[in-house]
Amino acid sequence: MSNVDPWGSWAVKNYDKLVEEFGMKSFSKKMNLDHLIFERNIVWSHRDFDKVFKRIKDKKDFINITGIATTGHLHFGHKLILDIFKLFKDFGGKNYFALSDIDSYTSRPKIKNMGEAKGYAVETAAHALAMGLAPKDIYIQSMEKSRYYEFTFEISKKITQNMYKAIYGNLDLGKISAVLLQISDILHPQLDEYAGRMPSITVIGAEQDPHARLTRDIARKFGLEIPSFLYIRHQSGLQAGKKMSASEPWTAIFLNDKPDEAKRKILNSFTGGGGSLKEHREKGGNPDVCKVYELLKYHYPDTKKLEEMYKECKSGKLMCGDCKKVCINFIQKFLEEHQKKYEKNLPVAEKIVYG
Amino acid sequence: MSNVDPWGSWAVKNYDKLVEEFGMKSFSKKMNLDHLIFERNIVWSHRDFDKVFKRIKDKKDFINITGIATTGHLHFGHKLILDIFKLFKDFGGKNYFALSDIDSYTSRPKIKNMGEAKGYAVETAAHALAMGLAPKDIYIQSMEKSRYYEFTFEISKKITQNMYKAIYGNLDLGKISAVLLQISDILHPQLDEYAGRMPSITVIGAEQDPHARLTRDIARKFGLEIPSFLYIRHQSGLQAGKKMSASEPWTAIFLNDKPDEAKRKILNSFTGGGGSLKEHREKGGNPDVCKVYELLKYHYPDTKKLEEMYKECKSGKLMCGDCKKVCINFIQKFLEEHQKKYEKNLPVAEKIVYG
Repeated sequence: MSNVDPWGSWAVKNYDKLVEEFGMKSFSKKMNLDHLIFERNIVWSHRDFDKVFKRIKDKKDFINITGIATTGHLHFGHKLILDIFKLFKDFGGKNYFALSDIDSYTSRPKIKNMGEAKGYAVETAAHALAMGLAPKDIYIQSMEKSRYYEFTFEISKKITQNMYKAIYGNLDLGKISAVLLQISDILHPQLDEYAGRMPSITVIGAEQDPHARLTRDIARKFGLEIPSFLYIRHQSGLQAGKKMSASEPWTAIFLNDKPDEAKRKILNSFTGGGGSLKEHREKGGNPDVCKVYELLKYHYPDTKKLEEMYKECKSGKLMCGDCKKVCINFIQKFLEEHQKKYEKNLPVAEKIVYG
Repeated sequence: MSNVDPWGSWAVKNYDKLVEEFGMKSFSKKMNLDHLIFERNIVWSHRDFDKVFKRIKDKKDFINITGIATTGHLHFGHKLILDIFKLFKDFGGKNYFALSDIDSYTSRPKIKNMGEAKGYAVETAAHALAMGLAPKDIYIQSMEKSRYYEFTFEISKKITQNMYKAIYGNLDLGKISAVLLQISDILHPQLDEYAGRMPSITVIGAEQDPHARLTRDIARKFGLEIPSFLYIRHQSGLQAGKKMSASEPWTAIFLNDKPDEAKRKILNSFTGGGGSLKEHREKGGNPDVCKVYELLKYHYPDTKKLEEMYKECKSGKLMCGDCKKVCINFIQKFLEEHQKKYEKNLPVAEKIVYG
């Protein structure tokens, strides 16, 4: 991995090991969908994406199914999921964006009742609508047709205790419910009562691959098309060595953060700048470890400008302060526009969640 | 236990041990609902039946919730369940007769797909309608409102692995689904979206008491009224030492048996008759072990006549052949009338199951 690749990352080696060990596939240039998530190495591997890619090229139907657990406020990590979902919507997918309220409640100790999970579901739906999804693209687990639930329970007959234990370690009942619902979320669009049998695409993190493999096994047992998966590299937190986390607000910019709040978070982010202005000018910065650069890499649309910034940082020409200004301007403008749409869409979001 | 009690049974001692060990309560005469199941010691113990009894006496609402797993053809053991359900319907219950198609599929290896479970559900519904239930008294797990399923999954968060293991031994996923659905069946009528919080009555066999206790625990955790249970003595099979079983047709009379078939089964039943006619006349028979007498005890409406038959059998005055004639006449007449109503109700039953 060359140091002058603006789309590389410190974590690449670990990810590549996963590809080797578990049989996920890396992307080839010819399977590139001409979007920043492919260009910038943000989706880094897949299972059977070829099938969906071919459907897109042939202008044939495919299922676009991804969900977000409704356990807290959405941050820019979730925005990436919504961006990719929107991408496949624009490519003509049959869309199933899942608000996973039941599985959030049953598997997360911090969610104390269904009301909390539904409250976060309203926020999630409003963000999804603000990002360009239509109401009919979104569904919530707790308001589905009976066929969905029947199928969810049917899945339980197809998983032995040993299969389950090998993947999830223990047999917590709430977690079992969540796993059944998640598998059902990915596969139910293929039922006759929904879109019907066809290739599907779901976006997940690499750590969820064992779950993806179980889901593919179950699909086989039901005679359904084996679902395809894209694996994303998770954007890391704004502080060094931190994940983005709702319980540590400084680690992430949330989609409902006030623009001023977002600004302060960016100003406080860990950067790859030199120890001093002088040192930075002389030796250059290190964008590969910089959280501000990472934020731009995941979300900033102007690829040419970003490539320039990467080079100018490394050469010592671009100072952290100026780079942060670009980031702050971009993020603040996004938040202002997004939050207007969010507010406008709240009543529709409430209707999706509460009926 | 006196031998001259026509409502005793060889199994009484075992049952009484259960009452002592697990804290179920025996019936007192003053809680008798003036029906053969109480008169004849067929319901032998209960948990909190007092609450429902009081609601009945005060002409207040209560929930009547019992289900049948749709795993095969119905026999006279199921008829007893329907008789008791109908009794509580007639006493003014808010009725929830559950066709347990999903849990039958997920927990029973012999049910290979949901289609089979639904096929048996149609039969079960048609029998229930023929026995006097209205379509609105009956529901099927696979066609419920989303609130029912949401609640079913919510229950999974309230059961620890250890609680579950202590009762069911192992953590088979299909069985877990079934347990969650069964608990939901008993408790969901108390949700605001259904009848609302109030006492309820459910009829089960004594072997299901651990399940009843778990259900009562869960009710506490949701702040619902603790459900009441009636425990029935299972009618035994027509052959000595056999249970009634769909896989051994000679052990039971099925509600769809042709009257001739039923006749042959009764003629072949194990009786308490003496070794020879002479011996029977001299020493008398033993109705307490007689399967024909047991069949009458559970279903024959004329208590006075049955008491006479019991005495006349013991004294040697009533011969097995004559006793069987009474039984055959009664059963054949019942089957003829029942099956007419069954046929008439099949289209409604199909609508309940398939919508």
